[in-house]
Amino acid sequence: MDGSAQKYPDCIALLPGADVPCELYGARAASIVDLMAADLPVPKAWAFSVETVRKFARSDFSAEFPMTDAVRAGRLLSVRASAQDRAWGGPETLLNIGMNADLRDVLAKPLGENRADALYFRFIQDYAVKVGRLDAEDFEIILERCTRAGVPNFGAAVQQSLAFFEDETDSAFPSDPELQLRQALRSLAVAWGGTSAKILRGALGAPSDAGLGLIVQEMVLGVGRGEFGSGIAQFVSVGTGEKTAFGRYLSQSQGRDAMEDTQKAQFLAKDPRGPSLEEIYPEAFARLQELAEYARKAFCDDMQLEFTIEDGAVWLLDAIPAERTGRGAVTMAVRLATDGLITRQAALQTISPKSLNEILHPQISAKAVRDRIANGIGASPGAATGRMVFSATAAQASEARGEACILVRVETTPDDIRGMHSANGILTERGGITSHAAVVARGMGLPCVVGAADIDIDTRARKVTLKGGEVLGEGDVITLEGGTGDVLRGAPDLVQPELGGAFQTFMSWADEFRKLGVRGNADTPEDFRMAQAFGVDGIGLVRTEHMFFDEGRLTVMRELIFADSDNDRQAALNLLLPMQRDDFIEMFTIMGELPVCIRLLDPPLHEFLPSTREEMQSLAESMGLPLSKVMTRIDDLTEFNPMLGTRGVRLGITAPEIYEMQARGIFEAVAKVQNAKGISIKPEIMIPLVSAKREVELVKSRVDAVASAVQVELNTKLDYAIGVMVETPRAALRAGDIAQNTAFMSFGTNDLTQMTYGLSRDDAGRFMRDYVALGVFPEDPFHSMDIDGVGELIQIAVDRANAVNPDIKMGLCGEHGGDSASVAFCHEAGLDYVSCSPFRTPIARLAAAQAALNVPKN
Amino acid sequence: MDGSAQKYPDCIALLPGADVPCELYGARAASIVDLMAADLPVPKAWAFSVETVRKFARSDFSAEFPMTDAVRAGRLLSVRASAQDRAWGGPETLLNIGMNADLRDVLAKPLGENRADALYFRFIQDYAVKVGRLDAEDFEIILERCTRAGVPNFGAAVQQSLAFFEDETDSAFPSDPELQLRQALRSLAVAWGGTSAKILRGALGAPSDAGLGLIVQEMVLGVGRGEFGSGIAQFVSVGTGEKTAFGRYLSQSQGRDAMEDTQKAQFLAKDPRGPSLEEIYPEAFARLQELAEYARKAFCDDMQLEFTIEDGAVWLLDAIPAERTGRGAVTMAVRLATDGLITRQAALQTISPKSLNEILHPQISAKAVRDRIANGIGASPGAATGRMVFSATAAQASEARGEACILVRVETTPDDIRGMHSANGILTERGGITSHAAVVARGMGLPCVVGAADIDIDTRARKVTLKGGEVLGEGDVITLEGGTGDVLRGAPDLVQPELGGAFQTFMSWADEFRKLGVRGNADTPEDFRMAQAFGVDGIGLVRTEHMFFDEGRLTVMRELIFADSDNDRQAALNLLLPMQRDDFIEMFTIMGELPVCIRLLDPPLHEFLPSTREEMQSLAESMGLPLSKVMTRIDDLTEFNPMLGTRGVRLGITAPEIYEMQARGIFEAVAKVQNAKGISIKPEIMIPLVSAKREVELVKSRVDAVASAVQVELNTKLDYAIGVMVETPRAALRAGDIAQNTAFMSFGTNDLTQMTYGLSRDDAGRFMRDYVALGVFPEDPFHSMDIDGVGELIQIAVDRANAVNPDIKMGLCGEHGGDSASVAFCHEAGLDYVSCSPFRTPIARLAAAQAALNVPKN
Repeated sequence: MDGSAQKYPDCIALLPGADVPCELYGARAASIVDLMAADLPVPKAWAFSVETVRKFARSDFSAEFPMTDAVRAGRLLSVRASAQDRAWGGPETLLNIGMNADLRDVLAKPLGENRADALYFRFIQDYAVKVGRLDAEDFEIILERCTRAGVPNFGAAVQQSLAFFEDETDSAFPSDPELQLRQALRSLAVAWGGTSAKILRGALGAPSDAGLGLIVQEMVLGVGRGEFGSGIAQFVSVGTGEKTAFGRYLSQSQGRDAMEDTQKAQFLAKDPRGPSLEEIYPEAFARLQELAEYARKAFCDDMQLEFTIEDGAVWLLDAIPAERTGRGAVTMAVRLATDGLITRQAALQTISPKSLNEILHPQISAKAVRDRIANGIGASPGAATGRMVFSATAAQASEARGEACILVRVETTPDDIRGMHSANGILTERGGITSHAAVVARGMGLPCVVGAADIDIDTRARKVTLKGGEVLGEGDVITLEGGTGDVLRGAPDLVQPELGGAFQTFMSWADEFRKLGVRGNADTPEDFRMAQAFGVDGIGLVRTEHMFFDEGRLTVMRELIFADSDNDRQAALNLLLPMQRDDFIEMFTIMGELPVCIRLLDPPLHEFLPSTREEMQSLAESMGLPLSKVMTRIDDLTEFNPMLGTRGVRLGITAPEIYEMQARGIFEAVAKVQNAKGISIKPEIMIPLVSAKREVELVKSRVDAVASAVQVELNTKLDYAIGVMVETPRAALRAGDIAQNTAFMSFGTNDLTQMTYGLSRDDAGRFMRDYVALGVFPEDPFHSMDIDGVGELIQIAVDRANAVNPDIKMGLCGEHGGDSASVAFCHEAGLDYVSCSPFRTPIARLAAAQAALNVPKN
Repeated sequence: MDGSAQKYPDCIALLPGADVPCELYGARAASIVDLMAADLPVPKAWAFSVETVRKFARSDFSAEFPMTDAVRAGRLLSVRASAQDRAWGGPETLLNIGMNADLRDVLAKPLGENRADALYFRFIQDYAVKVGRLDAEDFEIILERCTRAGVPNFGAAVQQSLAFFEDETDSAFPSDPELQLRQALRSLAVAWGGTSAKILRGALGAPSDAGLGLIVQEMVLGVGRGEFGSGIAQFVSVGTGEKTAFGRYLSQSQGRDAMEDTQKAQFLAKDPRGPSLEEIYPEAFARLQELAEYARKAFCDDMQLEFTIEDGAVWLLDAIPAERTGRGAVTMAVRLATDGLITRQAALQTISPKSLNEILHPQISAKAVRDRIANGIGASPGAATGRMVFSATAAQASEARGEACILVRVETTPDDIRGMHSANGILTERGGITSHAAVVARGMGLPCVVGAADIDIDTRARKVTLKGGEVLGEGDVITLEGGTGDVLRGAPDLVQPELGGAFQTFMSWADEFRKLGVRGNADTPEDFRMAQAFGVDGIGLVRTEHMFFDEGRLTVMRELIFADSDNDRQAALNLLLPMQRDDFIEMFTIMGELPVCIRLLDPPLHEFLPSTREEMQSLAESMGLPLSKVMTRIDDLTEFNPMLGTRGVRLGITAPEIYEMQARGIFEAVAKVQNAKGISIKPEIMIPLVSAKREVELVKSRVDAVASAVQVELNTKLDYAIGVMVETPRAALRAGDIAQNTAFMSFGTNDLTQMTYGLSRDDAGRFMRDYVALGVFPEDPFHSMDIDGVGELIQIAVDRANAVNPDIKMGLCGEHGGDSASVAFCHEAGLDYVSCSPFRTPIARLAAAQAALNVPKN
């Protein structure tokens, strides 16, 4: 034997200070040693290494067995799984190894005949099922046969079970404890290697060569005369993280019986619903609390304890991190840091940014009955219940009646926006994670399920046909779960979020450490107030077109589009100007001196025009135009690929009067608010869809001219920044040119992803699932940024822009700003800020803090 | 005076061997010196430098005037423009400087009173107009007044003109020759600096600081007793480049009179239309031919001569490169090289690849009357005349009747392809240089004008409303000029191309020098034969979808799309397979062992489905399906941005049976043709729209499996290459990954441009003119490749692909393959070949040769 084999033997006795690395002996082994080191009462135990367990699977028992003495002394043993990572699970524990006729007789004295027989029967059944691969059902039948007037005769059941085992396996039930132990070890080792176990843990993130250690532990019986029993306990709430007793205890039980038979099990603390350990045996309850506190300090985390009470004494069999939801996790982490058990940095690092999602929106209660009728893509988190409506108008009517509704559409268009504002949730049959419905819903913080392809929505007939053929209609109540994409029948219980207390403390810590700014995307004054409530560093994207979809404004916008003469055009612009100005006044008033980045009009003009014949007719009437003229104009503006058409700066250059009106609206609003509030506001004006330097020059010169004019007219001083939205690969590649004329660049990664992949976000839903399932894309690139492609373009742009203009500010505004991996990339790429839906800014703040805390990768 | 000023004086006498760089004294000065050096008879001349002329414009006459002696000796002089570049033009020549009453008397002896007076009158008029800025019309009125019975009294006209001049200018007409000369020099110098002159030469490519030198030359009179006169002559045909006499002579004339008064002017060689120099004065004609031959040798080019005959002696005043069309240029260049006057390399370098366009298609005769009724974007060169038809069906009917027709559509769709094949030209109201109509037309070599926005096409009513309101209908004859985008009424004379002789010799020289392969894009057997006729190195792009638009096949394709079961799907595929196979058999049979690159199905499936309700109805009937089902399926497949949707490899992965069928068709065809012809064929199979490595792996493994199966089934050996089409920016960025699995990469620069700019080629027409006019894009990036953006992506891909797979073949297949600047880029980027429409391959071959001949830029 060489030194290293000496250091890490096949089997090691678990003692305080023992060196048992998780990758060699599994996580449970390490846990037990830590419990022992904290002087907590843990039964004697040994750990077989991962390598040795692999030999067991091949029936190679050449390893040393240091527990032989215990076996020979007639001690009952358990064999427990100790996977390298707790999260990967493992085969079930096998209890009461060593039991045979002789030991049964020995135990009959302290326990009584029937309890001793019951233990023996239980062992035979367990062993027969787990080692002998017999059917558990057969043993239940035997037990039933041996039961008279509700009283089981375990002695008879033992005899019949032994005979049944011999019948089925052609060999006698082993009575040799050493043989029993070896077979138990082999059976757990083999179970770990089974195909279904591998698939299962693969889904939990285990690699294909994931290893299992095994623990052999002396039993604390849990049954006997006096207070015996077992249970599970943690002293923090799973859902809220607050201090409370959570778990169950069952007298006269072993292992996880208390959790499996919750009907019979007792509560831990006093509870109106039934008896509790605190009442039955207050000393044991107090001791358990004490042990939990010791464990918390030993592990620097709230722990869940597996315990057994043996004649009044509390023993711990295992300790794992306490169960917790995202919300609970935040509360626990904050208290651990406040108690000095962990640093604030560590507290920030323990929480997955994604898990904040469930905190920020109502959730379906874990206890609710789920009658799932469809499943789509979970596009915007949170749960929402309401009556189904099939049009924007119906949604508004529903809101007017004070009735919660879910807007159900094949897909949404900008015309639906008002309806979306009125709805509690959105369900669409088509579209992907960044379809119109998804993007708008996330912006509004509205739960949304898109691409529910297994249902058929007929908006004209106002009905939904489910997969099985059942039909639901307008007014039927459904519930969306935006996290999972589930659509449920009826109104299951929802749990509302609370963002105070620990959550706020936690976020303030994130802000202490993060380097990256986090702004919100906001289009309306309501959005602005929401963003401020979420504590953003500013507004990273105001999509001004959203201001034109309101009823009164849409008409003027359409008049502008239909204007035949300069006079008509100017008349429409004169109507739009005060509307825009008033919006901006409200926004600047809300945000004060925080930066606000306003994107000039972006979508193609046809988005403002009606799409159905009825709407065209009514538009023709309201404008006093022949229908044919309306239809021709709409036809003229129709595009094959609107995403790649006359929009953004292309519109700003070919129809410059719109941008001029917008610039004037901004500047007049700035002047007014500066005067009123005595503050200074420096608006950021962003030009969308740029692909060449000259585009910036042309727009900039016009905006500058408007600013000069307003300064003179209002006798005021204006300070402003003009920048570009980088959405085309060419803008990224030519960032060195473009940056010469711009104060900032903001990456619009939705469009940049579309163009880099040649992939329309509206149409990607059709094949994205197949693509992710086949591993073509590791993830939907509209969900988590494609670092290899889009990321490289961003890095190229950052480097080239900084080289010519070191003062340039760089940001990202898009859905990716709320995705933690993308935020981490932005931090490393050297961006100044990310901007996303206000509802996702906490995620961005935490992700930014984690990125700042990580050691750089190179 | 320092050395350099010494070397290049303000004014230099032009003598054989004089050092007169064009940038200092202008091109005419250099020309005159060259003529003198070749010992040709040129009147004495001096050149003022560009710098000195700038002083003249400021009335600074401090320069030396070495021609003072000539002036004092009573020699008449001319002042001629000598711009740094001939192409920039220049102010008109001023003749007869030095004329005054005294000299008139001197000249009256040899010339006669009236001729001397005529010369004097002419000078007064010329000087008064060009120097004094008076109105030429006033002098015509004076002359008329002095004319009796058709005989002008020039003596009286002189007197009245002198009086009129003094009246108008308040100063006597200058009689001092030196003063006349200075004023003449000043007036030409000032004219050069005028705004309209600057704009004019700017349009001809002159920089804003373009300079003008001036020539002062002794006059050869051109008038007198005996054979006197002047003219212009070249001895090669402008249109064909063949040897012939082109030009005019006018007895008793000066300067360019012969060209301005072609009614009175004589031909050079004998001509049935009228008298000629050859008849009037054969010795002078022979001398002129001789001088032209000397000049050709001196300048190593065919030259146009400006000549004057003075008492029988021929004098040359200037020689410029002979006028020539593209066709003429090729013939001249080939003959110059064959005669040993220039090298083949030089011959190749003198021809602009673009100019070959006019050789490759019929052209509207230069003499034709042009009744232009509209103007659009010239999308595919050549002229075509025919009766207007408004549908594909009508075009086919017209072809069946043997009647030439022009297909007139608002825009074309794949459904129109058969009609386009039947038409002689295409006219659309919408679309840009790479719209469907434009791309298909160029592929077919069909003249095409798109985006003719000034007309209104109503296909249902079968009429076109012109801008003025006039309406043309079906059957009316129009003519398209694809080069200029003009649409003409009626049938002007066309000139047919001849590609033999000099053109073929010229192209064979291009092939000697070029390094870059030139392939053709071809979709049908007809295209393949065409490509072969054009002498391509292979086929760079077979768009297999074009095989499915034929009537019989479209139905089967639609059956495939509507198939509900695997059985139905397989049945449709079984029908398509032999069709594909037969196409491939024909293609491989035509091309033999030349490489053929076949692109697997690319367009989204909805392109195969009907778009009007009538067509859907008829499809429903033919398939025995309810109309609602047809409409629903079409609706399901409709995409917001089809360019960015489920097409290309995305289809190949989500509906793999189509690619498998295509692969089988290719392999079975290869096996059959190899057997039949005893040759070995290595097809190149290209996967479109790739953006990730895994896409290639998935398709490749299926294609490999089909190949293995076919090899076994047919007991044959198959050799093939699998590669990708690089159309997305991501594919270019990830070329290092992707190249690991691919034998070749072909850049699809149409789509790559669309995605790099975020610019749909179908929708770009709306703003592209504005964009180019405003200088946002220097050129339409679909026309000439965007080297800065798209080019960088290509270079990145080439470098990364070569780094991991040095054997990889790289090509470009797209419209840019026929654009000379883009071809030059491909050469420098290290591509192996470009592929374009067969009709544009000569352009690519010449551009490739020129790129190879150029000294590398770094």
